[in-house]
Amino acid sequence: MAKVYLVGAGPGDPELITLKAVRILQQADVVIYDRLVSEAILAYAPSHAKLIFAGKNQGEQEKIQAEINDLLLHHAVEGKVVVRLKGGDPMVFGRGAEEWNFLCKHEIDVELIPGVTSSIAVPALAGIPLTCRGIATSFAVITGHRRNLTSQKWEHYRHIDTLVILMGVDNRHHIARALLQSGRSGDEPIAFIEDGSTDRQKVIVTTLAEVARGVVIVRSPAVCVIGQVVRLRKSLRKEIASGGRASKEVYVSSAAIA
Amino acid sequence: MAKVYLVGAGPGDPELITLKAVRILQQADVVIYDRLVSEAILAYAPSHAKLIFAGKNQGEQEKIQAEINDLLLHHAVEGKVVVRLKGGDPMVFGRGAEEWNFLCKHEIDVELIPGVTSSIAVPALAGIPLTCRGIATSFAVITGHRRNLTSQKWEHYRHIDTLVILMGVDNRHHIARALLQSGRSGDEPIAFIEDGSTDRQKVIVTTLAEVARGVVIVRSPAVCVIGQVVRLRKSLRKEIASGGRASKEVYVSSAAIA
Repeated sequence: MAKVYLVGAGPGDPELITLKAVRILQQADVVIYDRLVSEAILAYAPSHAKLIFAGKNQGEQEKIQAEINDLLLHHAVEGKVVVRLKGGDPMVFGRGAEEWNFLCKHEIDVELIPGVTSSIAVPALAGIPLTCRGIATSFAVITGHRRNLTSQKWEHYRHIDTLVILMGVDNRHHIARALLQSGRSGDEPIAFIEDGSTDRQKVIVTTLAEVARGVVIVRSPAVCVIGQVVRLRKSLRKEIASGGRASKEVYVSSAAIA
Repeated sequence: MAKVYLVGAGPGDPELITLKAVRILQQADVVIYDRLVSEAILAYAPSHAKLIFAGKNQGEQEKIQAEINDLLLHHAVEGKVVVRLKGGDPMVFGRGAEEWNFLCKHEIDVELIPGVTSSIAVPALAGIPLTCRGIATSFAVITGHRRNLTSQKWEHYRHIDTLVILMGVDNRHHIARALLQSGRSGDEPIAFIEDGSTDRQKVIVTTLAEVARGVVIVRSPAVCVIGQVVRLRKSLRKEIASGGRASKEVYVSSAAIA
């Protein structure tokens, strides 16, 4: 029976992929991958495998999503071993659930292979655990994508200890202002991590107020973390946590590291 | 220099561990592991490695945590390759951040190896993606542990689309009642997944009202998911998602699957 594997590639470091994901990639005939998947991970696929890039730019999502669905269906029906490879975990945003639903409607078997999610691993590898007893007993993961901006009610997240925002770099000023309006403090520390879990990791630490002012420069994509846990970086010696690699550091506001 | 690896073992399936975790386990002299880590994963350690069980029962945490910290420090100072192995991801509750902080204070190198978190993977493998466009644009992960019950303000989570509660089985009646009081609907579907990602997986689907009534039997530990995404199971054919394994199903309330 026709089958598609929905596979998580992990946060970036090619060693942070699961054994199962590698085993399935090694059997793949077709790999349809997103822009956050690295060359080193694609290299696990056999040389005969057809690698299809399914990256999306903002504005083109609807059109391209339909094309991706058709591609998955087409190759699965042909009896190929089809791997749909997504950065992080395949079920954290990124339309994984929609693709799964589409394939089920077309009677295609789907096997899910969860991955290490960037939403947790990227902050942790930068020295920011999302939870810590006495500091944070909950965290929320939120999409900051433009598409969801109007429907996203930022005041709902006012009291969550730690917030992780994915796909929110382009809208960071808007999001920071909305969180301030909802009652979060301007002094609250916020970190952006670019190229998390890789040699190119860059960490920007500042405050909600500075981001709201529009003065904080961040390159997309980056994982954003908001909350008192950001202050733990000082003591958790992040350059060791990421495997001895020094990461590039930018402190926009000294209030955030006090 | 003395060093400890803080390693995530993933949600249960021994193939859902990362390549890096296996590589480090294979070099281990000492492995200090929690009760959610399976035999199959411990088998990646070499035969000479000392395996130390650090499971905790409720009420003993404080005493045992101090002992675990001392064990980690003792073996690290002796120059051993020490692996601290935790179920799921090491930084999602379970005191990972505290152990990290303790070791840093004692000048021990810490290297973090994130894992596949049960909070996301276990629901997904049971056919419940935490996010889905149009249904859930955010999720929160919360500890339901007794220790945190008094400090946990359940009304803060009223508006989060999807809630995942870890370590909350024993307190499920209290939590369900608090969520109802905060304004969440009694009809809202809730799922408990025991032995997620393994052959013994059991899924209990019911409503918040039924859990609040105290009639829903769940064996600890289990991952709990609350929200409309629970209804997606119907269409996502969960027996296929978990690799062809049929999971045991229990429906306490038909309202939850309508």
